[in-house]
This record gives sequence, C-alpha cells and structure tokens, in this order.
Amino acid sequence: MKQYSTIEGADGQPKKLSIIPVDFSAEYRVYYEDTDVAGVVYHANYLKFMERARTDWLIGLGYHPQQPANSWGIIFTVRFAALDFKKPAYLGDSLSVSINLVTLLGASLEVQQQISCDRGILVSGKIRIACLDSERFTVRRIPIELRNRFKR
Amino acid sequence: MKQYSTIEGADGQPKKLSIIPVDFSAEYRVYYEDTDVAGVVYHANYLKFMERARTDWLIGLGYHPQQPANSWGIIFTVRFAALDFKKPAYLGDSLSVSINLVTLLGASLEVQQQISCDRGILVSGKIRIACLDSERFTVRRIPIELRNRFKR
Amino acid sequence: MKQYSTIEGADGQPKKLSIIPVDFSAEYRVYYEDTDVAGVVYHANYLKFMERARTDWLIGLGYHPQQPANSWGIIFTVRFAALDFKKPAYLGDSLSVSINLVTLLGASLEVQQQISCDRGILVSGKIRIACLDSERFTVRRIPIELRNRFKR
Amino acid sequence: MKQYSTIEGADGQPKKLSIIPVDFSAEYRVYYEDTDVAGVVYHANYLKFMERARTDWLIGLGYHPQQPANSWGIIFTVRFAALDFKKPAYLGDSLSVSINLVTLLGASLEVQQQISCDRGILVSGKIRIACLDSERFTVRRIPIELRNRFKR
Repeated sequence: MKQYSTIEGADGQPKKLSIIPVDFSAEYRVYYEDTDVAGVVYHANYLKFMERARTDWLIGLGYHPQQPANSWGIIFTVRFAALDFKKPAYLGDSLSVSINLVTLLGASLEVQQQISCDRGILVSGKIRIACLDSERFTVRRIPIELRNRFKR
Repeated sequence: MKQYSTIEGADGQPKKLSIIPVDFSAEYRVYYEDTDVAGVVYHANYLKFMERARTDWLIGLGYHPQQPANSWGIIFTVRFAALDFKKPAYLGDSLSVSINLVTLLGASLEVQQQISCDRGILVSGKIRIACLDSERFTVRRIPIELRNRFKR
Repeated sequence: MKQYSTIEGADGQPKKLSIIPVDFSAEYRVYYEDTDVAGVVYHANYLKFMERARTDWLIGLGYHPQQPANSWGIIFTVRFAALDFKKPAYLGDSLSVSINLVTLLGASLEVQQQISCDRGILVSGKIRIACLDSERFTVRRIPIELRNRFKR
Repeated sequence: MKQYSTIEGADGQPKKLSIIPVDFSAEYRVYYEDTDVAGVVYHANYLKFMERARTDWLIGLGYHPQQPANSWGIIFTVRFAALDFKKPAYLGDSLSVSINLVTLLGASLEVQQQISCDRGILVSGKIRIACLDSERFTVRRIPIELRNRFKR
C-alpha cells in the first residue's frame, strides 16, 4: 500500500537511491486557471494542489469529503503552513503531489507535502491541520476510527 | 444618487454623449491572481468582478453580505449568465464594474453589467439571479423591504 | 472514438434514450477551493471546469497546451459564453464535463458544454472561442492541421 | 508617511499601546469567491490578500505593477512563505493587510505581513521574495532606484 518518493539531493536533482515511503500521492494537471501573467503557476495555487491531495487521501481512506462534517460535525482546518518554492510549474505540467504524515496528535496532524514533476521537486511544504467543531470552530478530538485509518 | 456610464460606439470607442444611468458602479484592480499565462485576465474571473460589484451594491443599499442568509434565510444565486468578452484586461488595470437593474420580478432579478477601463468596455454581461431558500435551494420571494431598495 | 451523452428531458431528468455523440468528455472532482459559503460550487468556477475539459480535449487530440502559443504563435480565447445554471454541484462531486463541437469556422469555433453528475445535468453552456495571435491579440486562422483534428 | 499597526497581546486581543510602524497597509473586502463550504475564507486565499497588498505597496511607491517586467525585465517571486492561521475571516469582512519590510538584500527581500479585522489578527505570515529575470527566471539584483524606494 506504501508509495515511494525520491528526496532532492544537494545539487537540486532528485537522488534516486534515497527513496522514502509516502502515505499518499496523486497527479494533477496545471490548467490556465492556475497560471498567472508571469507564465508560471501563481504561488497561492500550490496550496490548492496540496489540499486536493489531502482530500483525495481522505477519499482513498474510504471517506467522502463531506463525511467529517456530516457524520462527526468536524472540519479539518489549516493552522500553519510553511512553503518552499523551489522551481516553477508551467501550463500543462502533470504535478505529482505527495503526503507524508509526520505527526498525528489527538486533535491535530502535521503532514509533509511535495509537489514534483519530471523536472524534480517544485514545492515542498509542512502543513499543520487542526480538527475543529464544524459549527463553533472549537478544537475537537479526531474520531478514533479516522485516527486508526491515518495510522494504518 | 444615480451614476452614469458611457455606451460604446460602433468604432469601439466610448461615446461620451450617450450616457445611461447605472444603478451601481465600483472600481476593482487587476492583481496577479486574476491573470493567466496568456498575459491577460482569465475569462472566468470577470464573473468574479461582476459578483463583487453586486455584493458591494447590496452593501451600498445598507445590507451586510451575510444578512440575506442570516436575517431572511435566503441566498441570491446566478441562474443564467451571458458574457461578451470584447477586449482583455491587464495586470494593474483599474476596472470599473457597473450594474443596471433590467428586470425585478417576485423571486428573481436580471442585471446588465459592464466592465470597463480607460480603453473602453472590456466585458458586458447579462446576469439572471434567483432568490432561493438558503438551506433547501427552493425558490423564495425577495423580501419586500429589499425589493423596495432595489427599485429606489 | 466518439463518446455519448444523455440529453435532459422536459422534466429535468436525463433521458436515457436520446443519447447524442460528444466530441470529448472528462471527469473532475469538486474540491474545497471550488465551493463557497453557500455550500455549493461558486458560479464562476463552472467556467473553469469547462476550460479544463477544452484543454484536456486538446491534449487528447495530441497537443500539449503550450503548443498553440509555442509552435504557431496563437492562443484560443473565449469571446462569448452563455451559461445555464440548473442545479448546484457539491464538495466531493465527480463532475463529467462534455464538449460538443457545434461550429468550426476559419478563425473561431463554438462548443456546447455540459457539466453533469449522478443527479443529472448541472450546468450547460455555449462557448464561442476565437483564434488570436498570442502577442498582438489580433484574429488568426486556426492552423489547418489543428482544424482537421477538430473535425476528425 | 509611516502607518501604524497594533500587536496582538497574550490574550489574543490587540494591545493598543504597543503599536509598531508598518511600511504599508491596505483594506480588502471578503467576497463569496474567497470563502468555501466551511463558511470561512479558504486558506490559500489569504496568500492572495497578502499579494494584493504587496502589489498596492509597489503602486504606492510610484510603480505600475507591470513596470518591473516592462522596464527592468524582472519579476518578484515568492520563494518561501510561513503562514500562521489564527482566526477565520468571513464573508463581508473588511480585512486590513499590513506589510513590514524585515530584510532587504541585493536580490531578495523579506516581509512580515498581518491580516486583521475588528476581531484582531487573523493571519500572520513571513514571505521571502526573490528578484528574478522575467524571462529566464535567474536571480537578478533589485534595481537601485527601487531598492531606495523600499528603504525610504
């Protein structure tokens, strides 16, 4: 079930030997809507690609994206994001977006995400996500069933 | 209270003499996020500028954008849009977005909207908006208080 | 190579018998970024889904999305769009976006597009697209090679 | 010419006494397009508000947003962003977005940005921006004239 990702070496090239397992990975194409007048993907839109991957991860674990709110009254919300923009993505690129679950706490989780294409790693980021009550936005524990799925 | 707009002549230049009254007009700048790799504003984003103007129109009439849902349990939703893209808008342009209320019915309204800058009219559109129940998305009558404000 | 689509009947339900051939169709998921506070997909974003399908159509015909600009110095730009918003799309929906080539002229084309899911047709639209010089934004003829692919 | 901003205290409330100078500040309203189904502003869109402020800062210094590319052949591109999401923004909020120039080097700058409204600070971020050749995306020195404006 594990997928594997390469780590970028000191020279900025992917090091084929040091592969690390990733918890999820999906492909998304760059369309016109994602680009800006500078000819590359607008920086804020990389966060959208990362969020798409997290939603598809949830789906891959067996949950509809509306299920956290509808079944448990919770939402997952980004509390912190650190993004390293290494190389630009261009119109038509097929982007591979990976997720590594770094930390899983009672009411939050932290993931490491990488956006890469055939030119190497483009953007890497660390995202901290909190589990909140979907109505009152107060902290809530992640349901045990879902926690177990995250850990596998 | 009436504002005035120019109509574009056959030569594509605004005809200064044939001004028409508009119900509302506001200015919005074009930022990087609005553009795409072709170097101009991405076509779907003109609908966003038109929607911003409609929201600011509501605010100008004395209503917070959340008030329709919170006070009356209604939302306004676009049912039909016809858009004529005449000239492109560029990064940094200051866009003037006008609204002309064309039809006001019991549960819907139709507006004519124009996006223009110092190079003339860029986009013109006809937007039909329905008043719906904010929970069940069924048709609802526009509250009489709001109808009276729309008509002035 | 032809794909088929259903036509919506008078009762708003897809009529399974009257299928029409479509020139292209692709599936796209609705993510958080596509929705708004009303709980459904923001109206302007349906234009994005339609544009993604047109880009994937081009790719399906054998062209990278950058090829029109890079090889022929042209871009395709939306000149007119009429959109009928019938039903809302929700977070997590898998949207099927179809393209029917209605008119193919020397320097423009018109397509009929439908966005549907398992609840039927959500949005239908008519989009007129012009072929322009990518630098000067003047009208250009569609390259004969590409015209032939469109027609098949 | 200096504008002033409040710092959030330990209790999460703005401390009126400890004001710090900011290099630029501007107001932006939250529209439907900025929100998502969770009822608040979609996390990636806060980066857009921050970018709008940086563009308006440049305009305030006397430069059209196209001038860096057109006059000097450079673009400013985000290389790193760290974002702290403290409280959500809602439809209709008027957001104040501030910029503090923290570091100004030969070919890059770092700014501290805060997004706040009458409920206090919502998002704070540190953004590192590089000056690149607009065609080749290689590092370029910030033009001396512009550097002097940034420093005041």
